[in-house]
Amino acid sequence: MRYSAMFGKTQKDAPSDATLSSHKLLHKGGFIRESTAGRYYMLPLGIRVQQKIINVIREEMDKSGAQELITPVLHPLELWQETNRTNTTGFELSVITDRRGAKFALGGTAEEMMVDLVRKFQISYKDLPFNIYQFSTKFRDELRARGGLLRVREFIMKDAYSFSTDEDQFKAEYKNMWETYLRIYRRLGLEPLVVEADNGYIGGEYCHEFQVESEIGEGKFFISEDGQYVAHEDVAKFIVEDKNINEDLKEMQEVEAIRGNTMEDGVKLHGLPDWQQMKDVMFTDSEGKLYLAVIRGDLDVNKTKLEHVLNKVGQLDSATEEQIREIGSEPGFISPVGLEGKVFIVTDKSVRTVHNFYGGSNKKHRDILNINIDRDFKADLEADIALAQNGFESIDSHGKLIEKRGIEVGNIFQLGYHYTTLMNNSTYTDVDGEQKKYYMGCYGIGVGRTLATIVEKYHDDKGIIWPEEIAPYTVHLIGLNLEDEAIKSKAEAIYQVLQKMGVEVLFDDRTDTMAGEKFADSDLIGIPYRVVVSKRTGEGVELKLRNQKESKNISLEELVETLK
Amino acid sequence: MRYSAMFGKTQKDAPSDATLSSHKLLHKGGFIRESTAGRYYMLPLGIRVQQKIINVIREEMDKSGAQELITPVLHPLELWQETNRTNTTGFELSVITDRRGAKFALGGTAEEMMVDLVRKFQISYKDLPFNIYQFSTKFRDELRARGGLLRVREFIMKDAYSFSTDEDQFKAEYKNMWETYLRIYRRLGLEPLVVEADNGYIGGEYCHEFQVESEIGEGKFFISEDGQYVAHEDVAKFIVEDKNINEDLKEMQEVEAIRGNTMEDGVKLHGLPDWQQMKDVMFTDSEGKLYLAVIRGDLDVNKTKLEHVLNKVGQLDSATEEQIREIGSEPGFISPVGLEGKVFIVTDKSVRTVHNFYGGSNKKHRDILNINIDRDFKADLEADIALAQNGFESIDSHGKLIEKRGIEVGNIFQLGYHYTTLMNNSTYTDVDGEQKKYYMGCYGIGVGRTLATIVEKYHDDKGIIWPEEIAPYTVHLIGLNLEDEAIKSKAEAIYQVLQKMGVEVLFDDRTDTMAGEKFADSDLIGIPYRVVVSKRTGEGVELKLRNQKESKNISLEELVETLK
Repeated sequence: MRYSAMFGKTQKDAPSDATLSSHKLLHKGGFIRESTAGRYYMLPLGIRVQQKIINVIREEMDKSGAQELITPVLHPLELWQETNRTNTTGFELSVITDRRGAKFALGGTAEEMMVDLVRKFQISYKDLPFNIYQFSTKFRDELRARGGLLRVREFIMKDAYSFSTDEDQFKAEYKNMWETYLRIYRRLGLEPLVVEADNGYIGGEYCHEFQVESEIGEGKFFISEDGQYVAHEDVAKFIVEDKNINEDLKEMQEVEAIRGNTMEDGVKLHGLPDWQQMKDVMFTDSEGKLYLAVIRGDLDVNKTKLEHVLNKVGQLDSATEEQIREIGSEPGFISPVGLEGKVFIVTDKSVRTVHNFYGGSNKKHRDILNINIDRDFKADLEADIALAQNGFESIDSHGKLIEKRGIEVGNIFQLGYHYTTLMNNSTYTDVDGEQKKYYMGCYGIGVGRTLATIVEKYHDDKGIIWPEEIAPYTVHLIGLNLEDEAIKSKAEAIYQVLQKMGVEVLFDDRTDTMAGEKFADSDLIGIPYRVVVSKRTGEGVELKLRNQKESKNISLEELVETLK
Repeated sequence: MRYSAMFGKTQKDAPSDATLSSHKLLHKGGFIRESTAGRYYMLPLGIRVQQKIINVIREEMDKSGAQELITPVLHPLELWQETNRTNTTGFELSVITDRRGAKFALGGTAEEMMVDLVRKFQISYKDLPFNIYQFSTKFRDELRARGGLLRVREFIMKDAYSFSTDEDQFKAEYKNMWETYLRIYRRLGLEPLVVEADNGYIGGEYCHEFQVESEIGEGKFFISEDGQYVAHEDVAKFIVEDKNINEDLKEMQEVEAIRGNTMEDGVKLHGLPDWQQMKDVMFTDSEGKLYLAVIRGDLDVNKTKLEHVLNKVGQLDSATEEQIREIGSEPGFISPVGLEGKVFIVTDKSVRTVHNFYGGSNKKHRDILNINIDRDFKADLEADIALAQNGFESIDSHGKLIEKRGIEVGNIFQLGYHYTTLMNNSTYTDVDGEQKKYYMGCYGIGVGRTLATIVEKYHDDKGIIWPEEIAPYTVHLIGLNLEDEAIKSKAEAIYQVLQKMGVEVLFDDRTDTMAGEKFADSDLIGIPYRVVVSKRTGEGVELKLRNQKESKNISLEELVETLK
């Protein structure tokens, strides 16, 4: 490709709102261009990189035995209603009505579409297992979309869906995908951590995210000191140590408490440790039903865990002051004591690690001392609803938890019977002739986000440093002094020779551009091999690798040998 | 690929509403599956063919100098408003509103998106010309969608857009695309005719369709006897011969005419030739303005031509009886005589080939004899608004017009300044420093429709006969008697050897399927080389080409040699 003819040349300035390196460099280098917030054009340079990433994913998916196909972009809304995901996706589903009145969703994922496809066939146990995948545009009606390709409203995703006879058969495929993903990312120059995570609106019981460590990442997760336990903040487990569990239970006592509404106010007033204070957080679901989460004062409630144990994924909000007062309590002074039957009480396991809690009384400026579970109130449910923190002790003796930030570039989900339970006829004929539900999993890779993550990892202050496998071109051939016919002929000849060898070459053949600008563009675009032909290079060329500092003069034969 | 593991195996029955061979065979063969009407899943076999077609198109487009990129799926509706295409597209535009209230169109074409992209850059004359293209999903909210991949609501289209400094530079690119398209179709086994056509809602002045002759095609076009003139029914020109042009003008006379409303009724009543009758057809635009089209009685009004000369593309409908009566006329008895100033009168050129027309009088059961243009009424516009018919004489002495039906697999459009006139800042900096509008063209290929057209052309009553370049696999290896370990080992060995050679093999390794069914599946799927390994084939194999009748037994060496 001649750079003079290329559409989408480098730009001097990044968008004014760009803060991330990948956003700035992909824009300035001529890889992407924003249409409206969160929706991008992939320019000629960008689409080459994207296509190479797709090819790597496709090769490894095919090797894993998965089979590519593609679903329509518009999903019949009935399918999303069948699984009740029109309300519970956690993102606003975009719906479109055609002129006959039929409604369609712009899909964010495609579980329903894939089950609907599979149930159009008569599947027998002999057809199982299989794993079908696609590269398709996905839509998320995100409220905020910024950060270039890292947080968008429209993106290409590789989404795969596995169908198995049972959990054992599924687990083999889950492992297969886990390993396939690691192979894919390794080829792309990334080394993600595999993080236990929350399955959110997808359904199912467990899942793992592939997180590339990065300070700019939106995902927070923990890794144990020995590296054996890696879990997302949403699900991370840890050991809650007993506190004053040997202390005798004292008599409960209501006292005056002229204080503010915070935990600190309580500690200050009573002069007791924060862990001995009872923390009470009121939530409501969309129907106005109230849930009281009770936890030790030095810990925080993990809303994701809470939603899971209540089977209310994505459906809980903080209760309003009005809601709290309506049931006879008082903001800042909530207590489970006396609220039994009025709200659904969930206690964290940590409530069993303390005796003689102090806390609110459901009345303003009145506290209770020496509250004890079972004796003074009963929980409707006891569960782990606590949020992990840096330095907490991990379970199973893996050492302390270390907090990390990462970019989620992929994920794998156990779905189990979640969709087959909700959708009719999602069965196969077993060896005994019986119709049985199949056992599912799903597996996603965000292509654009992976691309941006590679840039986050591979760049310097001058530009991108593409790994060779996914570079838009292998060689950036720069012609200088092209007004000299001899040099021009030589540059053209090298361009032709390399192309005939099958080497992908971007040839900067511009005659109106200074050397400095050409070098700057080359550093910005980030092609691995920079080859310069000028009056200084004599019979040979100057070769410089983008990821090295030194350049060297080599003969044409050496160049050909290097690029073979 | 092992057929036993493949998702999307052959089906016994085609959909009950399928009438076209391509629809039936692609469904039964396991290439496609309908989601909802007009929206299809491409199954693993289908996506392989689709990908190969895309690769052929991509290779030839790249060779032509065009550059691939991709636009977002959702187009900001403002852009379509800027060109006034929200109302005039000829198809219902699907619009979606996001949760911030922003509106987007699901694009049917992408002219606005491409201009909007280009105007984000500072383009100079040195950057021109360029041609940018994408493969992307397009949406058409068709009222009726049936016929498998031939008439759909969602499809992958290769759409290209060229930007040039002026018409001359554009014309070179138009020719370049014309030739590129012919190369693409030739590689795909198609030989389309290049048909002058109507540019419809796209805008611009001229365009050409690539039509593959087919009885099931929805497009009607004409080719002259010498093959030099090929034009769509919408635009086809022909010679209108003079009739009684030497007859003297007679005095106009109103007579009683107790007759029905058809042309035949008039001929019968007056005993005069059909061509001497004046045909008057009333149209209305969306604002209720009336247009009277006047033409010779043996010809029909071509609504597309009429809309073009009135600059009302896609905007005319037949007037209602009420509308006709409101301006003082009468359905079945319309006449231009006396309607001047009340309606806009457009006469076809054929009105000048007859003297002394007879026809209606704007009063029920009254006709007028000896109507002559200029003397008795004046036209607001004279133009060619006549519909061509089989056997008409073509212009420029190319012989008679022969009617054909075809499937439109692609098209190329001159756009000129249509979009740059409507859209701000769609300019480049010329050599003199002036901002000038660029001159555009656009170029489309429907990928799914091309795929279906190939099947329409390449099939027999047993199934598809894929051309080798786009076949899903090159070899269909059929193992029979696989319960015999020796035969099974041999079949497996051949499968491995061919794959190592880089040959794409579909291996029917099923052990529960009879030979007859395997052969039938193989004929249905249509892979070029069928290789059978069985107890009958001894040391060698049986080779049969899908497009030939005879099979032959050959050695493994010969097989390898054939497939090299």
